[in-house]
Amino acid sequence: MFLALRDGGSLYYETFGAKGDWIVFLNGIMMSVPSWKDFTGRVSKHFRLLLVDFRDQGQSSKRAGPYQCAVHVPDLVELFDHLGIESVHMMGVSYGGQVALEFCRAHQNRLKTLELVTVLPKVSNYLVAMGEGWEVAAALNDGARFFSLTIPSIYSDTFYAQRLEWLKNRQNAFRKTLTPEWFEAFIRLSQSANRFDCEDVLPTIRVPTLVLCAEKDILTPAKEMKEMAKLIPSATVLEIPDAGHAAFLEKPEAFLTAIIGYIKSRD
Amino acid sequence: MFLALRDGGSLYYETFGAKGDWIVFLNGIMMSVPSWKDFTGRVSKHFRLLLVDFRDQGQSSKRAGPYQCAVHVPDLVELFDHLGIESVHMMGVSYGGQVALEFCRAHQNRLKTLELVTVLPKVSNYLVAMGEGWEVAAALNDGARFFSLTIPSIYSDTFYAQRLEWLKNRQNAFRKTLTPEWFEAFIRLSQSANRFDCEDVLPTIRVPTLVLCAEKDILTPAKEMKEMAKLIPSATVLEIPDAGHAAFLEKPEAFLTAIIGYIKSRD
Amino acid sequence: MFLALRDGGSLYYETFGAKGDWIVFLNGIMMSVPSWKDFTGRVSKHFRLLLVDFRDQGQSSKRAGPYQCAVHVPDLVELFDHLGIESVHMMGVSYGGQVALEFCRAHQNRLKTLELVTVLPKVSNYLVAMGEGWEVAAALNDGARFFSLTIPSIYSDTFYAQRLEWLKNRQNAFRKTLTPEWFEAFIRLSQSANRFDCEDVLPTIRVPTLVLCAEKDILTPAKEMKEMAKLIPSATVLEIPDAGHAAFLEKPEAFLTAIIGYIKSRD
Amino acid sequence: MFLALRDGGSLYYETFGAKGDWIVFLNGIMMSVPSWKDFTGRVSKHFRLLLVDFRDQGQSSKRAGPYQCAVHVPDLVELFDHLGIESVHMMGVSYGGQVALEFCRAHQNRLKTLELVTVLPKVSNYLVAMGEGWEVAAALNDGARFFSLTIPSIYSDTFYAQRLEWLKNRQNAFRKTLTPEWFEAFIRLSQSANRFDCEDVLPTIRVPTLVLCAEKDILTPAKEMKEMAKLIPSATVLEIPDAGHAAFLEKPEAFLTAIIGYIKSRD
Repeated sequence: MFLALRDGGSLYYETFGAKGDWIVFLNGIMMSVPSWKDFTGRVSKHFRLLLVDFRDQGQSSKRAGPYQCAVHVPDLVELFDHLGIESVHMMGVSYGGQVALEFCRAHQNRLKTLELVTVLPKVSNYLVAMGEGWEVAAALNDGARFFSLTIPSIYSDTFYAQRLEWLKNRQNAFRKTLTPEWFEAFIRLSQSANRFDCEDVLPTIRVPTLVLCAEKDILTPAKEMKEMAKLIPSATVLEIPDAGHAAFLEKPEAFLTAIIGYIKSRD
Repeated sequence: MFLALRDGGSLYYETFGAKGDWIVFLNGIMMSVPSWKDFTGRVSKHFRLLLVDFRDQGQSSKRAGPYQCAVHVPDLVELFDHLGIESVHMMGVSYGGQVALEFCRAHQNRLKTLELVTVLPKVSNYLVAMGEGWEVAAALNDGARFFSLTIPSIYSDTFYAQRLEWLKNRQNAFRKTLTPEWFEAFIRLSQSANRFDCEDVLPTIRVPTLVLCAEKDILTPAKEMKEMAKLIPSATVLEIPDAGHAAFLEKPEAFLTAIIGYIKSRD
Repeated sequence: MFLALRDGGSLYYETFGAKGDWIVFLNGIMMSVPSWKDFTGRVSKHFRLLLVDFRDQGQSSKRAGPYQCAVHVPDLVELFDHLGIESVHMMGVSYGGQVALEFCRAHQNRLKTLELVTVLPKVSNYLVAMGEGWEVAAALNDGARFFSLTIPSIYSDTFYAQRLEWLKNRQNAFRKTLTPEWFEAFIRLSQSANRFDCEDVLPTIRVPTLVLCAEKDILTPAKEMKEMAKLIPSATVLEIPDAGHAAFLEKPEAFLTAIIGYIKSRD
Repeated sequence: MFLALRDGGSLYYETFGAKGDWIVFLNGIMMSVPSWKDFTGRVSKHFRLLLVDFRDQGQSSKRAGPYQCAVHVPDLVELFDHLGIESVHMMGVSYGGQVALEFCRAHQNRLKTLELVTVLPKVSNYLVAMGEGWEVAAALNDGARFFSLTIPSIYSDTFYAQRLEWLKNRQNAFRKTLTPEWFEAFIRLSQSANRFDCEDVLPTIRVPTLVLCAEKDILTPAKEMKEMAKLIPSATVLEIPDAGHAAFLEKPEAFLTAIIGYIKSRD
């Protein structure tokens, strides 16, 4: 489904499930609505699930850059208003977690709970350097090489050991699917995170918050996510062992356990 | 409630909740039914919760020693039969997890899922040595000294840093409550684990299994629990950061998230 | 050798080697000069090695309690003066590391380098609780039970897995050797650390400092020793894998590599 | 200095120091003799230090590919013979550690000790994937982009946080220095490691061996290096905290302590 935004852009979204609270899943930077296809069935047994592509992702419209990632917040508010969603559980992974923190800054009253997955409150020198590498890789405009240059930082060595075939297929899909427009949009998204800093938001968070980190995540290391959690009043922390930054995908059972469990256990 | 066992003993148990699957919580060695008082309300919103004291725990009858911890399995079967429980989710913490693994050996068909919390499949030299120390401490027949000699191995330094008052009160409760009969029973329970070895059971486990470990657990270290999980087909693993062996009590939100979430996410 | 101290007490010490800088090894709380017997040969090839029993340790005289662990500092100064040692490399393990930090407070000018091994700059609630347990254990006045109640906190599970026979022999030695006077002295030493706090000393340290931690140390965890190192200007940090608080004894090669290497590499 | 090899190629090498045992430092893949300039002074106080560029590194001659990394072993033997070095301490970092293991396979009798730094005995799927990315990056023939695409996998986030200026200068040096010939040689070296497997060598190692790993190394993780060490009889293991794969450069004091200390402590 598409929402025509007031400023002329459009957001692509899908909804699943007919009962329970609303939960929205906010995408990581390389993701789009179909990335969640293996999760929608089980999540929507418990929640009304909203998936959405940020502008410059998936089927949503493009957006002129440069911009900061906070720019997605009013789009989400417009979408929630359109769907009549007064308050929502918000799960954000990586880039989506950054947007969730920016959402908290202005609209915490619309959140029931917050689930922060493999995300840090501030971009470090290291993440900026990684981002620069990714932008160099994207500028090659070649899905297969982009995959070779970025994916080993995102998945764990364990996943490479166990799922090499899946990764090869994925590389092939990157090769076939990624277009010049996709790469340009990716670069805008990547640059929008370069000055991200929500450290000041952490102590203001009043909604129940789950911090979900992954043992082998080198982009948003577990150690630093635990430090973040100490600054959020009453955060609950869980760690997914033996997974990298793409933990939700490497260990889907652990991810679903944590997300569904955190909300259901508070009923 | 008491169940009069066929062999003349008795089991103390309590049930909570009126709908949903049955789940049984199996106690750690120093625990008894009231140890779960802060958990019953939230668990029983989703499940019919069964709490039970093993013989030599809480209000259940005493049992002549020496015995092995597998001895509790037929008691559980008798209790399940009595309550008309055909199959059950079984969550066992530490000693209770050992009993759960022994239960698996003979009655896996009565399990819907298995949740193994801070437990290892085999007792190491180190755990035997710890157990010997605990038995020395119990033989002093003095709750306050028993507390001083055993509890620092069970709770994390973080918990001592944050909850010293609670721990002091708990030591006082130990001092007032623990009787010579309790200490004798404790020693029998402790000795019943000295030769525990269920490593052969792990590869036979066919029910969905959650392995829940704790970062600072020195009795059943996270590293070794993760090795255990590799031997269980399709185990899901989560780790509770910044908690010791008593993780369920140090971080109750994380514990409830994992246990409730693991089962509900499989609905 | 004995040094008659000005106040009437006496210090037992031994020296090894005839050339090179002086290095002093300061004992952990349960140790005494003979604890280093397997190390003296290799260390004294490079250094003039000084071993010393604090008062209330080994063959040194007893001292009336209560006292703080800083009380050993003037004894060391008197010993250094007696031996004509103007400046020294100071290696302190655990309790000995605490004394080394107190030494730094007043006499840093007499140090060439500082090696802090399995020690923290401040006693936590957790260490105080452990210490209380140890004092309860010492009051039993029984070496074998004292061993059972304290040693599992000091050695790693790996060491228990690999060296059980050695540990059993050691327990036997405790049983035969430890006297009522030893236990009384141990309790005074233990209590002397209960309010230890040298956090203010860390930023004042100007001598080259090695911080040597152990992966499975539960008394002075590696994580916290690394935090300590951040507060010491120009500290160098190394970690001994798969060892507990008694790392120097569990992994003597790693210990000697780090201590000898830190000093020799600065030649 | 250059050694004219029997097959017509040439090896560039330098020697430092006039007394003590010989020690050879074997380069990581992107390194060359000048990479060690800050280390030669301190190492050569204790040892006669030999630095050498593998063929396809630094000033040594190029070599036609494809080849396996074992190909460097006879070159080393020829160099040792030329210099009259009967036996040597061999320190290899990363790629150099792989060559050291291959050297062990055939010429262990010429080793006094072995120091394996940030290296694994076998190339994993993950390392192969990383290598593919590096080869893609090298094929761009642009030092600045090559730096952006490879260096964040080699240095830790801590180093990026503390030494950003140094890294920027280094990127500039890459931009100015790296030639098409360098990139072609780099690709041959990278491919020569793609099927590296010396797991069978580990149990045959009889010379004293130090295994030096780094806490934040994502290419040759500490956890796996510790597993390697278990397969080497009598290996000694140390870990450098808070450093990535380039640990020797991120934490030079810790590196020198370990290497010099391991050998000197065995005198």
